[in-house]
Amino acid sequence: MTRFSYSPEDMKTRKYIKKKMRAYGLSVREDGLGNIFGKLEGTLPNAPSVLVGSHYDSVPHGGNYDGVAGVIAGLEVAALFREHNIRPAYPLEIVAMIEEEGARFQGGLMGSRGINGLIKEEEFHTIKDKDGISVIEAMEQAGLDPSLPVHRDPKTMKAFLELHIEQGPILEQENIPIGIVEKIVGLTQLEVTIRGVAGHAGTTPMNYRSDALITAANIVTQLPDLAVKEGNGTVITTGQFNVYPNGANVIPDKVVFTIDLRSGEEASIHRGIKEVERLITSYQKGSIETSVTQKLLIKPKALSENIRSIFKETTKELGISSMSMLSGAGHDAMVFSDYTEAGMIFIPSKDGLSHCPEEWSDIEHLAQGVDVLFETVKQLTAKD
Amino acid sequence: MTRFSYSPEDMKTRKYIKKKMRAYGLSVREDGLGNIFGKLEGTLPNAPSVLVGSHYDSVPHGGNYDGVAGVIAGLEVAALFREHNIRPAYPLEIVAMIEEEGARFQGGLMGSRGINGLIKEEEFHTIKDKDGISVIEAMEQAGLDPSLPVHRDPKTMKAFLELHIEQGPILEQENIPIGIVEKIVGLTQLEVTIRGVAGHAGTTPMNYRSDALITAANIVTQLPDLAVKEGNGTVITTGQFNVYPNGANVIPDKVVFTIDLRSGEEASIHRGIKEVERLITSYQKGSIETSVTQKLLIKPKALSENIRSIFKETTKELGISSMSMLSGAGHDAMVFSDYTEAGMIFIPSKDGLSHCPEEWSDIEHLAQGVDVLFETVKQLTAKD
Repeated sequence: MTRFSYSPEDMKTRKYIKKKMRAYGLSVREDGLGNIFGKLEGTLPNAPSVLVGSHYDSVPHGGNYDGVAGVIAGLEVAALFREHNIRPAYPLEIVAMIEEEGARFQGGLMGSRGINGLIKEEEFHTIKDKDGISVIEAMEQAGLDPSLPVHRDPKTMKAFLELHIEQGPILEQENIPIGIVEKIVGLTQLEVTIRGVAGHAGTTPMNYRSDALITAANIVTQLPDLAVKEGNGTVITTGQFNVYPNGANVIPDKVVFTIDLRSGEEASIHRGIKEVERLITSYQKGSIETSVTQKLLIKPKALSENIRSIFKETTKELGISSMSMLSGAGHDAMVFSDYTEAGMIFIPSKDGLSHCPEEWSDIEHLAQGVDVLFETVKQLTAKD
Repeated sequence: MTRFSYSPEDMKTRKYIKKKMRAYGLSVREDGLGNIFGKLEGTLPNAPSVLVGSHYDSVPHGGNYDGVAGVIAGLEVAALFREHNIRPAYPLEIVAMIEEEGARFQGGLMGSRGINGLIKEEEFHTIKDKDGISVIEAMEQAGLDPSLPVHRDPKTMKAFLELHIEQGPILEQENIPIGIVEKIVGLTQLEVTIRGVAGHAGTTPMNYRSDALITAANIVTQLPDLAVKEGNGTVITTGQFNVYPNGANVIPDKVVFTIDLRSGEEASIHRGIKEVERLITSYQKGSIETSVTQKLLIKPKALSENIRSIFKETTKELGISSMSMLSGAGHDAMVFSDYTEAGMIFIPSKDGLSHCPEEWSDIEHLAQGVDVLFETVKQLTAKD
């Protein structure tokens, strides 16, 4: 599935979502970014809404679950409200957001950042896709109305709940259907450059070499232990690793590689960065030169303790086993958490895979997730 | 310097070489590949020649010494014969060869392989450069005559001597001006593939990973020790190293890298291959899969013991220090060594560099090399 924001695939899905919302008795509106809201009014006048939803855009050649599973789960919650003829005290809003992946306009989380006022409306003219088409232009081409308001007053939101696939192997391995997200990990991205001396593979004896690849390889092999030693869910990954000049008979004189370090604890991120820098600098000797540049630093974000405890209760009452866990990836709930009570549950991903056609979550787990959301939303929308 | 075979730069240099040959009293001829021979007749009738020379083509953006230093040294030997008015018993032939680097027509050593009958003349129609121009066409375009014979009867050669820059750091580091090449090392090239399991950098805990990069890095860090342990001048290099999918937040699921293993001893090459394969296979467990393909295997080639001992004597008599050494790279002398007595000396390369504009050898070392060649050629061309 490739479903970019404002594409024909978006428009087809948008139509489906709006149709379902109306069928479940929700009043539908779209905002100036094309985010879709389906509202079930509550009995309390002017009360803030409990939002349930996720994004429905995808990465290129992605799967059928990342994002859209959370939108479907929201729609199912609305269906259950209708089925059980429940009239909430606080309004219930099902939300389907655009452009979380950043596959079209880069940066990611555009829908939730727009709703929460983190992007100025004039920026929608300057944010462009790779073909130079701005958000405004893309919306107009798709027949959407970019003149509608985007930023939403936080006072209109009582809570935001999101179901998402785990995108990792833990729930499947532990055979637990529901993960209650405690925190979204913080992360740093470093770029490391190792410079050595090029030389002919045949004419340079081993003891005369300053091999940038051997040095870089020595460093990356020590990163997993460093992560495990730090604990607190710290993970370290080298994903990008480029060797220069990359010829079979030339000793490499340069390697540039990335270090992605994530942890649930801010202190672990800072300690991790120091440890990584100490490790790299220890190889700075003779003709080997090392440098480290920090490209990104995001603090860990704790989700609402209140909502987490409701999730825990409801899973217990429903007889569904659950576990508390960290989210290693960013999500819309992370953006909402600065403006309202935000809660998030994960369902298992087969083989831990995501962002690929093999992405899969069992329908039973999705149903269990819907049940947990439904019970939680009932509590949150009820009279205090 | 970029001097491809049959290019305008070749033609300019060719003109210069032929002019110098004539100035030193040599009779000039070219063969059907454009190799240039300048002959000083000997007193013995129908006697085989002592050849002195090297190639004068270069790699793209190469230096001013690799190859052409040996041609100039040959010309200087001819100049000394003239200066000292020496009439040899065996003919002296100065040879300037094309296409040793293989920068235009690939494969390399084309001049010496042609002379020694290792390329069939009909192949000169099918060997083409990247623009689809065959050797024959390129020669005709340059005004050369491809209809001339190329293959030379080995009986017409008494010996082949070559001076070349070391292209390595040893002579400079040891402060010795002349290296006497004992052997040209043999080599194997292996291609290694490591397959693991991709995963999200944030959502895959360290203990759930099968990281192809960490595995590959662990392997390459152990290669230098393996080379040192094997001895016999064994060197092992990983020059090419490609990581897939090579995204900063994705655990790599594939790494493909090269292993270039060279040694003066054939047994060391075979033992080295076994050790490398054993090392790689030891990482084949769980979800990690490894495979090794052998791309190339060339045996070490010893040069003439007789000529080596003359080189040794003459350096001693001239008061020039020398050392016996291996050549880690292939040379025209290696091709000649199967058909005639072949000898080779190295002069120091500044910082061990070659195939780059920084390539440099001191004129004093070049002069010392010429002296050694001159004394050696005098002996080899004298009446037995």
